[in-house]
Amino acid sequence: MHATSFIHDLAVIMLIAGLVTVLFHRLRQPVVLGYIVAGVIIGPYTPPFALIQDEATVKTLAELGVVFLMFSLGLEFSLKKLASVGVTALLAALTEIVAMVAIGFQIGKYFGWATMDAVFLGAMLAISSTTIIVKALDELGLKNERFAQMIFGILIVEDILAIGMIALLSGIAISGRVEAGAVLSTLGQLSLFMVVALVLGILIVPRLLAYVARFESREVLLVTVLGLCFGFCLLVLQLEYSIALGAFMIGAIMAESRELKQIEHLVEPIRDMFSAIFFVAIGLLLDPAVLLQYAWPIALITVAVVVGKVVTCSLGTFVAGNDGRTSMRVGMGLAQIGEFSFIIAALGLSLKVTSDFLYPVAVAVSALTTLFTPYLIRAAEPFAGLVNRLSPEPVKRGLGYYTAWLQSIQPQEERAELLAIVRRIVLHVLVNLCLVTAIFLAAAYFGPEWLAGHGDARLVNALLWSAALLLSVPFLVAIYRKLKALAMLLAELSVRPEMAGQLTAASRRVIAELIPVGALIGILLFLSALSVSILPPSEVLLVIVLAVGAVAVRFWKRLIQLHSRLQIALYETMNPPAP
Amino acid sequence: MHATSFIHDLAVIMLIAGLVTVLFHRLRQPVVLGYIVAGVIIGPYTPPFALIQDEATVKTLAELGVVFLMFSLGLEFSLKKLASVGVTALLAALTEIVAMVAIGFQIGKYFGWATMDAVFLGAMLAISSTTIIVKALDELGLKNERFAQMIFGILIVEDILAIGMIALLSGIAISGRVEAGAVLSTLGQLSLFMVVALVLGILIVPRLLAYVARFESREVLLVTVLGLCFGFCLLVLQLEYSIALGAFMIGAIMAESRELKQIEHLVEPIRDMFSAIFFVAIGLLLDPAVLLQYAWPIALITVAVVVGKVVTCSLGTFVAGNDGRTSMRVGMGLAQIGEFSFIIAALGLSLKVTSDFLYPVAVAVSALTTLFTPYLIRAAEPFAGLVNRLSPEPVKRGLGYYTAWLQSIQPQEERAELLAIVRRIVLHVLVNLCLVTAIFLAAAYFGPEWLAGHGDARLVNALLWSAALLLSVPFLVAIYRKLKALAMLLAELSVRPEMAGQLTAASRRVIAELIPVGALIGILLFLSALSVSILPPSEVLLVIVLAVGAVAVRFWKRLIQLHSRLQIALYETMNPPAP
Repeated sequence: MHATSFIHDLAVIMLIAGLVTVLFHRLRQPVVLGYIVAGVIIGPYTPPFALIQDEATVKTLAELGVVFLMFSLGLEFSLKKLASVGVTALLAALTEIVAMVAIGFQIGKYFGWATMDAVFLGAMLAISSTTIIVKALDELGLKNERFAQMIFGILIVEDILAIGMIALLSGIAISGRVEAGAVLSTLGQLSLFMVVALVLGILIVPRLLAYVARFESREVLLVTVLGLCFGFCLLVLQLEYSIALGAFMIGAIMAESRELKQIEHLVEPIRDMFSAIFFVAIGLLLDPAVLLQYAWPIALITVAVVVGKVVTCSLGTFVAGNDGRTSMRVGMGLAQIGEFSFIIAALGLSLKVTSDFLYPVAVAVSALTTLFTPYLIRAAEPFAGLVNRLSPEPVKRGLGYYTAWLQSIQPQEERAELLAIVRRIVLHVLVNLCLVTAIFLAAAYFGPEWLAGHGDARLVNALLWSAALLLSVPFLVAIYRKLKALAMLLAELSVRPEMAGQLTAASRRVIAELIPVGALIGILLFLSALSVSILPPSEVLLVIVLAVGAVAVRFWKRLIQLHSRLQIALYETMNPPAP
Repeated sequence: MHATSFIHDLAVIMLIAGLVTVLFHRLRQPVVLGYIVAGVIIGPYTPPFALIQDEATVKTLAELGVVFLMFSLGLEFSLKKLASVGVTALLAALTEIVAMVAIGFQIGKYFGWATMDAVFLGAMLAISSTTIIVKALDELGLKNERFAQMIFGILIVEDILAIGMIALLSGIAISGRVEAGAVLSTLGQLSLFMVVALVLGILIVPRLLAYVARFESREVLLVTVLGLCFGFCLLVLQLEYSIALGAFMIGAIMAESRELKQIEHLVEPIRDMFSAIFFVAIGLLLDPAVLLQYAWPIALITVAVVVGKVVTCSLGTFVAGNDGRTSMRVGMGLAQIGEFSFIIAALGLSLKVTSDFLYPVAVAVSALTTLFTPYLIRAAEPFAGLVNRLSPEPVKRGLGYYTAWLQSIQPQEERAELLAIVRRIVLHVLVNLCLVTAIFLAAAYFGPEWLAGHGDARLVNALLWSAALLLSVPFLVAIYRKLKALAMLLAELSVRPEMAGQLTAASRRVIAELIPVGALIGILLFLSALSVSILPPSEVLLVIVLAVGAVAVRFWKRLIQLHSRLQIALYETMNPPAP
């Protein structure tokens, strides 16, 4: 009667998914595999059961699956844990991406494909699939192990680098050459956005959720959570980042809320429903005919992805100082491609620089490597043992030496403590700098648009710039104080009495004053450059800076109080006192 | 990047819904109202915030909301409770539908609309909105009260009658006259389908769920539940019934499962998400311009719906023997129109017999009456008190006499017990008859299609008919035995020794034998008529019936055992032993 093809398709998918989940659970096989096989069976390319009427519908539903999978992943994420695997994640992700792009490019060249096809193939192989890994680790019950946390860290770094890669590829496709400046600027903007969003998010969202939780209505909490999740995704889309990144970030922000357990519980059924759809959809996109036609390239690329990723990720993880077993488990967990490859393939098509076959090949390789993922993860432990037994003694000894050497260059005791203090100060300065930068960028970009027609443009600009500076004062004061502390520390260490003699105290004081003042002037110049579109003439600028400076000096203590209150609020949200 | 308008629209809806749910909860107002207002604000007709890009998307999502709302309603439904409010439900629903169709028709005529417009307007006002009532009662925390159970009963009867109404309207629109036969046939088929689906469903589904629950995976259970839900909806759509009916029925079937609590818990978040979307979508469809243009008819129709439904439903409920307060609460809960009115309006448009303005008018009246629903439900109790105080003494006395008279004609003690036995036997016979009818209908409709080309058509038909009869034997035997018991009871009561004298025993035996045998022959003739398309020639038929009859006699005890095992399984599922 009022049946739409949408409901029909959804019904077919859920029915099949229901059958398959029971069957595969009974056979003790990964359900993800079952979903994909089911997708192939009901898909449009296998004639007897073309049960799906509208492929676009399914793709849309699958995208919702990505949102909920990434959101759930964010909920289970911990900023503290990321910090603890930071070096490993960065090193492994960079090794993997550089190597896989090169391997992909060479394979494309080997098959005599056009240069652009080869470049895009390289990019497609670079990034592993967060959704598939999360699902597989979840099913195998390994999500909370240390190697899994490392994998998540690597995936986050990859996702950030992927955004840069998309900017790079667009640039190459349009201009035909690499635009390093554009890539750096994109990555810089992305990092800035992430820092500001996380800081503001962690200040606001957990408090809002605590307020809503007091109504004690599961429905109100759920709808609020979904509203925040989708609202943030909208913001992220507006800034032209991927919705997957947005869902992940808002999840990570909510992970700092005290209602986390309840939220996870509420979101779980919705995630399970849409992730089933997501994996069935992957199967749906698989065309056996293309598989056959491009069987040889697909096979070679699949092998390259599995071997290449296992080797490069394991290597990166090992070089960062982890033992061989953990490295192997990390590498074997990351050996697949997924949603990001489809995005890259679609980008090439929409820019009209790649051939038509690239998309189905990407889907086929993704499906195949997805099939292998759970088996690879399961096989990692025995395989690591096998490698260990089969490696020749000199190799083992060499690797042992490396690990020992890495241990030996780790800073010890006093020095380690000092390094930790310096690192914390630098982190604080960077976060405050990001906030100030965001304030000026926002004023420069949105201010003139909002206030257009509200009086003389020069006056408006001067007011905007003053407002931005005034808003930034607490953060600038904090930066000044942190830098002064850092400078004093450095002065203490660098100016030794045995060398400076009577000038020791004076030299130290000069250094301790010069560094923060110099840095502050540098920051102000940087901010002026950022906000050049609303920058008042220099004489006006001087008046504004002096006036705001006077305000800063007058309310010095209050500003410090305000900033430390914000800092404490942030700290308390992330480290809740024991109930 | 890969933002679709679908995700965008969903995000806007969820964001607004999240804001509104918190705001209205804070203001202690019904959240449903908030959702509708939010829908109007972001809707396409209020210029400043046309945030929704694709209306079709929203309608599709809203339909998913109907599925999950009806499914949840089914989960909370109990067949036993329906039986306990059966008479009230039937009487109130019939009173309401007949009166509202008449009122609607007269209003259409009053405004000088075309006859067809008036007829469709009548139909639009007939059926109340299940989804809106469920939501409102849930929010007010009244769902488990007796009057709410009566409302649900009335809504189910209405839904069944609505299907018949659609058939009737289609007939009128095409032929220009009322086709009573078609309506009766439609209603008969629908009842048959419901009985068979419920019996088979309650035999199969709870056992399947118990099996799946043993895996102890929340995901597997959820995906199985959703698979069953959507699978059944597909079946129902295939038979051209409404998806709302299907979702409700499979919910009612699962309500007999022992995993009910867990299932409700898993489905709740999904329902909350989609029901928020459903109510926002109602607001989206509201065009203030049409509201203004047709302000007067809309106002009159709204008043007619509220007053008409309150009066007719209260009256029907009171006449069925309930007290005034309960009757008033039932009537005031049912005073709105909803999704069914949109279906009728859409039907008229697609048949090209109604004018364009009817659809927006239906939406406006639905939105307005939906707005009033929670307030009416809340006001029911004080209003009933007010009516009671203001009614003149004679009226009160008259109503009191009626209630007392109704009490007096209720069967007492022995007679009541006897009536209960007879009712149970008749119910058993009817259920078995439905099953047998379904077997023969299935054989006649699907058999020839499936077996086409597998040999001689006459031979295939004869085999099909024999198979159907053989399958029906356990149920036919059960019917025979139940009817015999009934006949013996009747004989005992009707043939008194003081009148029949020495012939008493003989007369009783004749009656006890004649009735079941006669009924069985009647049933066989009825089945032959149903399966006329596969009926073998009469000599073959005779052979088949005699052969199957011989089998029945030969395996009499085994057949009784088989049937009673099925019956016990059904009974135990519906009346689980205390754990």
